[in-house]
Amino acid sequence: MGDTATGDPRKKLALAELAQRFGLELRGDGDVLIRGVATLAAAGAGQIAFLANPKYRNQLAESKAAAVIVRAEDADAATTPVLIAHDPYSAFAKISALFETRETYPAGIHPSAAMAADALVDPSAHIGPFVTIGARSRVEAGAVIGPGCVIGEDCIVGTDCELIARVTLVTRVRLGRGVRIHPGAVLGAAGFGLAMDAGRWLNVPQLGGVAVGDDCEIGANTTIDRGALDDTVLEEDVRLDNQIQIGHNVRVGAHTAMAGCVAVAGSARIGRYCLIGGAAGIVGHIELCDKVTVTAMTLVTHSIREPGEYSSGTPMMENRQWRRSAARFRQLDALARKVNGQDKENS
Amino acid sequence: MGDTATGDPRKKLALAELAQRFGLELRGDGDVLIRGVATLAAAGAGQIAFLANPKYRNQLAESKAAAVIVRAEDADAATTPVLIAHDPYSAFAKISALFETRETYPAGIHPSAAMAADALVDPSAHIGPFVTIGARSRVEAGAVIGPGCVIGEDCIVGTDCELIARVTLVTRVRLGRGVRIHPGAVLGAAGFGLAMDAGRWLNVPQLGGVAVGDDCEIGANTTIDRGALDDTVLEEDVRLDNQIQIGHNVRVGAHTAMAGCVAVAGSARIGRYCLIGGAAGIVGHIELCDKVTVTAMTLVTHSIREPGEYSSGTPMMENRQWRRSAARFRQLDALARKVNGQDKENS
Amino acid sequence: MGDTATGDPRKKLALAELAQRFGLELRGDGDVLIRGVATLAAAGAGQIAFLANPKYRNQLAESKAAAVIVRAEDADAATTPVLIAHDPYSAFAKISALFETRETYPAGIHPSAAMAADALVDPSAHIGPFVTIGARSRVEAGAVIGPGCVIGEDCIVGTDCELIARVTLVTRVRLGRGVRIHPGAVLGAAGFGLAMDAGRWLNVPQLGGVAVGDDCEIGANTTIDRGALDDTVLEEDVRLDNQIQIGHNVRVGAHTAMAGCVAVAGSARIGRYCLIGGAAGIVGHIELCDKVTVTAMTLVTHSIREPGEYSSGTPMMENRQWRRSAARFRQLDALARKVNGQDKENS
Repeated sequence: MGDTATGDPRKKLALAELAQRFGLELRGDGDVLIRGVATLAAAGAGQIAFLANPKYRNQLAESKAAAVIVRAEDADAATTPVLIAHDPYSAFAKISALFETRETYPAGIHPSAAMAADALVDPSAHIGPFVTIGARSRVEAGAVIGPGCVIGEDCIVGTDCELIARVTLVTRVRLGRGVRIHPGAVLGAAGFGLAMDAGRWLNVPQLGGVAVGDDCEIGANTTIDRGALDDTVLEEDVRLDNQIQIGHNVRVGAHTAMAGCVAVAGSARIGRYCLIGGAAGIVGHIELCDKVTVTAMTLVTHSIREPGEYSSGTPMMENRQWRRSAARFRQLDALARKVNGQDKENS
Repeated sequence: MGDTATGDPRKKLALAELAQRFGLELRGDGDVLIRGVATLAAAGAGQIAFLANPKYRNQLAESKAAAVIVRAEDADAATTPVLIAHDPYSAFAKISALFETRETYPAGIHPSAAMAADALVDPSAHIGPFVTIGARSRVEAGAVIGPGCVIGEDCIVGTDCELIARVTLVTRVRLGRGVRIHPGAVLGAAGFGLAMDAGRWLNVPQLGGVAVGDDCEIGANTTIDRGALDDTVLEEDVRLDNQIQIGHNVRVGAHTAMAGCVAVAGSARIGRYCLIGGAAGIVGHIELCDKVTVTAMTLVTHSIREPGEYSSGTPMMENRQWRRSAARFRQLDALARKVNGQDKENS
Repeated sequence: MGDTATGDPRKKLALAELAQRFGLELRGDGDVLIRGVATLAAAGAGQIAFLANPKYRNQLAESKAAAVIVRAEDADAATTPVLIAHDPYSAFAKISALFETRETYPAGIHPSAAMAADALVDPSAHIGPFVTIGARSRVEAGAVIGPGCVIGEDCIVGTDCELIARVTLVTRVRLGRGVRIHPGAVLGAAGFGLAMDAGRWLNVPQLGGVAVGDDCEIGANTTIDRGALDDTVLEEDVRLDNQIQIGHNVRVGAHTAMAGCVAVAGSARIGRYCLIGGAAGIVGHIELCDKVTVTAMTLVTHSIREPGEYSSGTPMMENRQWRRSAARFRQLDALARKVNGQDKENS
């Protein structure tokens, strides 16, 4: 990726300046000039690296980085100037942002865009090529609507939102400030509401919308259905990775993060500061309290009232061994009865 | 969401009129005017609510709804006029539809659309902005093709179909009447047919198509591959939620419904009136008979010949406890042998 | 599907010619003219079928195919002329390709396309309607960019690549030669890099890109995030089915194939010639050696150092039975302790 991947090649900052700006302790030569970031293994002249995962600690001595960000206890193992941080990953994130090259998009509406007569777009917003904006929708100041996005009826895109490309807001979707949505995401599609009537499915009208709080991020190809009567809600600073499915009338608490491919069924309520592992499932009409961690591929089948870590599934095994365990799982009740019966006979 | 979410604010219907129209028993004042629908908890003046899930029964007494739809056995608990229904949810769906505000789209082809010279579009159909329609494809009467849809070669979009936005029909996709497809869905992509040949993968041409029956609904970002030789088939009134993957040559029986994130591998055959829970998996080349229910995140690994409910997986547990059970799962065969061996020794 | 589904109706090839071209042994009348391919069950006059899966062996005698491709041991069961192949499926794939009708797309840029001033497109490439190509990106000879694709900044689309429709390459995505990408796929979106800072999430800049090797195929609605510092990498001839999620900095070895809905978390390294079953999950920061097979819906939680087949999960059961086994799983540690304790007492 060359210079582009490591940031703006024209920017150079002294290590001492970074220490001061982010309140980090400096050890070693503060005059070292930093012009980019890299991993411990790949870093070269002018690049700063970091150590957060102890798994990579042995790379510290061999790193060719100009400087490294470490915890105090790792500082002695470094052979370069160091910045000491309580949380090296978060310090790295901030320093890295200084060197990030971000594309800028001009204010104004691309001539190809298809705008409803009553759609409102702030003059400072950017509307890219092949964008559609429907009736009664509004795009606020500084928002960036990338190529191919479809914004349907009665939507609001808040200040400084960024819809990267090919995002769809179907209807009644309201985004707060600074929401970032990745390509292929679909918000506000009709929820999966069905009633069986005389042998055929009947659609239950989905009259609600989707309300997304400030600073949320929504991953590529993630889907968030609109509510049946009330809204589907993401509170502020919710972070959703790619290919997540959020059913109608779900509520996700502030600062909760979900890894890729999580599926949340309708009307589930998830607390604040929860961490949902990849491909986990959450069934409908249950509640998770704040600060619940769910491990990858767990199915959450009932409400959780205590913070903590929750799991389901079985460990990965070599297939032939696994087949034997799996066969025994089928007989588990009989086995347990036998053991308990023996117990009684033995006692 | 205000008036929009609760339907057309100009429409008002007397409760007695609703009772008569849908064959429901009225108890209480039939002159009450209904102008919208809402949940028990949120309903206010002029709104009708319903009670289907017994979990919410305690909301009945406190509801500020103008009227409620309930089962006969719940009627006494209501403090408002009631409509009595055998199936309150289905009655609610029908009443709710009366108050739904639906966007209408004008007949005709948006000037931006890119149409193959031999594509045929009925004059009553709506073709939105940035739509592409390929060679030998046809769009029938009353169909709505929303913004950004791509219809490839040799496709048929039946009467009154609705492709909301950014739907792709790749090639040889034929939709019956009244099919509704949500944004991001992809039908007719080449199935995953691979043969290993001298250490490299060889693509197996995917020469079939996709045939979708009348009244099917296909969720956002769902994918349905075209067949290798024969077609992939959805019979009538199949309901697929978001992010479902249907492999090549799968056949899904009429009136079957699948919740979000289900994955069905190639050449599986699924019966009629099946209910497939969220994120369930169905392996290839197996058959499910009619009226099979599969619970969420179950992996169906062999054919099912009896209607009923099927499951796999383990219950969710607090992580430390779960680790202990999971560790024991590894040893399950040895454990069972020990128990059975003891049994023999004891007897 | 008629003639289109079974290939070009004008092409006719003698069976003997097919035998010679692909080095297959012919038994029976080599003058039989073949004009298409079909399944054993559906084949009629002029069509060649194949038998690879022994499950369908009983269809051999009744097939109305003009000829069949079989293994030597199945040749006697056929009632038609046969081609004998070591691997009938791969032989069929090659023969089938002869009869495939492929749409051709003219060289040149559709007038609707929105091109950055410094984007470079080879004159032999096809750029379809409503395509966006961003700053500093390049499309090489013979590439086909279908309708609605979005190519962002600093991307390279190699010679003879095919982006079917509505594919997004966000930024710093480099495709080798002959890569085929299906609709809705998103490559190069920002990886899910988050650091918690004073109670709010902080984005970690995603400065890397995505590098895709020659001859890779990427399914519909699959997502591949760009790397945080280094690139996310697919080596040559990797085959990804639909709705797969590949996290940032993952590396997938050459010739590895993944079935639909697999989720791979960040920084995982997967070897060459691996086969990953549908909806399997692979956690972050682990390594799989070459030639690992993972069965459907398995969660891979730790590194795998030996080639072989690996699994997790429990077998599908009738729900009432399953509930009993699942309840016992909760108590498994206590059960094992009891058995082991008895063992000690008994010995």
